Amino acid sequence: MMNFALMCGRCRKKISLSQPAWRCSCGSLLDIQMEKEPDFRFLPGNRQGIWRYRAFLPVDREENIVSLGEGNTPLVSLDLNGRSFQVKMEQCSPTGSFKDRGAAVLISKAKEQGIRKVVEDSSGNAGCAMAAYAARAGMECRVYVPEATSPAKLVQMRAYGAQIVLVPGSRQQAADAALAAAGSGYYASHSWNPLFFQGTKTIAYELFEQLGHTAPDVLVLPAGNGTLLLGAWIGFKELIRAGAIPRLPRIYAVQSSQCSPLLAAQIQNRWPPQDFIPKQTIAEGIAVASPVRGCQILDAVRESGGEVVAVEEKEIRSAILALGAQGYFVEPTAAVSIAGVGRISPALQPEERIVSVFSGHGLKASNAIAAILDEA
Amino acid sequence: MMNFALMCGRCRKKISLSQPAWRCSCGSLLDIQMEKEPDFRFLPGNRQGIWRYRAFLPVDREENIVSLGEGNTPLVSLDLNGRSFQVKMEQCSPTGSFKDRGAAVLISKAKEQGIRKVVEDSSGNAGCAMAAYAARAGMECRVYVPEATSPAKLVQMRAYGAQIVLVPGSRQQAADAALAAAGSGYYASHSWNPLFFQGTKTIAYELFEQLGHTAPDVLVLPAGNGTLLLGAWIGFKELIRAGAIPRLPRIYAVQSSQCSPLLAAQIQNRWPPQDFIPKQTIAEGIAVASPVRGCQILDAVRESGGEVVAVEEKEIRSAILALGAQGYFVEPTAAVSIAGVGRISPALQPEERIVSVFSGHGLKASNAIAAILDEA
Repeated sequence: MMNFALMCGRCRKKISLSQPAWRCSCGSLLDIQMEKEPDFRFLPGNRQGIWRYRAFLPVDREENIVSLGEGNTPLVSLDLNGRSFQVKMEQCSPTGSFKDRGAAVLISKAKEQGIRKVVEDSSGNAGCAMAAYAARAGMECRVYVPEATSPAKLVQMRAYGAQIVLVPGSRQQAADAALAAAGSGYYASHSWNPLFFQGTKTIAYELFEQLGHTAPDVLVLPAGNGTLLLGAWIGFKELIRAGAIPRLPRIYAVQSSQCSPLLAAQIQNRWPPQDFIPKQTIAEGIAVASPVRGCQILDAVRESGGEVVAVEEKEIRSAILALGAQGYFVEPTAAVSIAGVGRISPALQPEERIVSVFSGHGLKASNAIAAILDEA
Repeated sequence: MMNFALMCGRCRKKISLSQPAWRCSCGSLLDIQMEKEPDFRFLPGNRQGIWRYRAFLPVDREENIVSLGEGNTPLVSLDLNGRSFQVKMEQCSPTGSFKDRGAAVLISKAKEQGIRKVVEDSSGNAGCAMAAYAARAGMECRVYVPEATSPAKLVQMRAYGAQIVLVPGSRQQAADAALAAAGSGYYASHSWNPLFFQGTKTIAYELFEQLGHTAPDVLVLPAGNGTLLLGAWIGFKELIRAGAIPRLPRIYAVQSSQCSPLLAAQIQNRWPPQDFIPKQTIAEGIAVASPVRGCQILDAVRESGGEVVAVEEKEIRSAILALGAQGYFVEPTAAVSIAGVGRISPALQPEERIVSVFSGHGLKASNAIAAILDEA
């Protein structure tokens, strides 16, 4: 299949996807172009999960598909703070977060490219996903994690047989260490590597089908590296190109106010923002001070007519408690987007359909949640 | 809908399901009879999860359905110890175990019956499920758990707002304490209460659909209280009554050899078994010394042409490691059934289709798994 190619966002160089490139030779970010219009009219009736959309994913041969049963997550209704909205239950993914979508496609393509060893950096969830799919594919996997990573996530990565490198300091320092080490293996980065976003884009396809072949009006997503947000943006744009929906949902990127470089950039109208100093947040999954694709995230949000918002730690804690009282147990990062819905909903029209996500499982961070329960 | 009634297995008394009875006045177990043949030809195309089978579930009114998005779990293929088989990913359920199926139906019907407060006992997973669905329904929930319950499961129950009673001693002692306290609330027991099995039976329906309108030849399930096993048995029997499948899959009940009252009973050909002494096992979810429905479990296994088997602790540990190396992170109880597949597969025909389950998520027991990884 020649339907996909790598494309540099800066020098516009086009590279064949048969090559395992995760960055352009000019040093810039690569994206993936789909040459032909996708056609959503003839999806296979008997296939569930992300590989239902196999025709729109850059993996050529069926035998290269590395799958753990990802995708096809439930969409549930929630009433909170006087507003009804829907939530995509990504915590029900095989490893407990939406990152499985991206890892499944990235590792499948890496297998197709003959890769035997991958390197990743992660606050935990992407590392768990990459370790799991690498294990499924029989690849070696090394993950650089910040030393403060949740114990449960570390056990999970170890169970998949990944080699874990604890990096002292911040999430950013773990990313830097992985980037420096990427020479010794394929950088399966969920921020750099454009294949990852080909997986996360399937959330747009699934929402389109679950919402009766429509798009939501408003999409509220957590944003650190923007892996889910950019994937959703790509997916909905493909749905527009296919003539399946008329316009993008307005995308709201929610950050923790302790670490909100995207909000700072939006206010300053420049990327990267000046004088930005990150602080600690319980939302470890989005504690990203310098998102590699920050500029792209801002473009996506702006193009869609949405905006970046930030929520306080106490709003995150309140959201965890409110969700628990409704029967949903999610990690702090997942509560961020729900707190974000509370922030933005006063400005929305009552009839607008809002969709948000539970990005990761509460069991990923039971120590942190126990501390919140003890305080409450 | 008058399609369902409670029926005592001993005195044959019939009780209306409008009454919140979890046990017959004679003290015996109640079961639920479906009066009319179910018809599997006309399932709603646009509904996912267990409520797709709403016509065969004993909840009358749509507005009483209490749902967190349960059911519709992936079915994946696995190769282990030279045998290919399929596994139902129940760890991807909203609270991380198959217990969500049972809790969803039980709490929905309890809501319909006007119940405001439920009592349950659990090694953790059923307690988490019941607490979550009770929270969703706005009911009070008290859970009696053995004091050795996994910390993550306790945090999860607390997050749902459940009142937790730590009972010193064994799983059995927690059950006894709950039974004694059941006078003060509705006993939402996953062993006594027959509504629970109306939920777990949906796994049979889903397998039937996922396997192209057939049943597997062999079903390998963990067995403690037998909540999943009895549910599957009920479901497949309904499929036979409906003319949808010709015969039951052979059901193999897998226990830990440290706590295998069902195996002892099978050998002695009597229930309960004599001189049975349980020992500690890492498979906390099935550490049940006196399963209330033990006799029924044995009937189900025998009727299906299967048998009870037991696996050693070291086989459970090996299965956890082998599954991790394949990208699956499951709790020890889930590894029991996979170890069971290894036990029984030499005696099976090569063409027989085997299905097993991952009953619960690895994140439910990350401490226990960390200890296994440390030893390995």
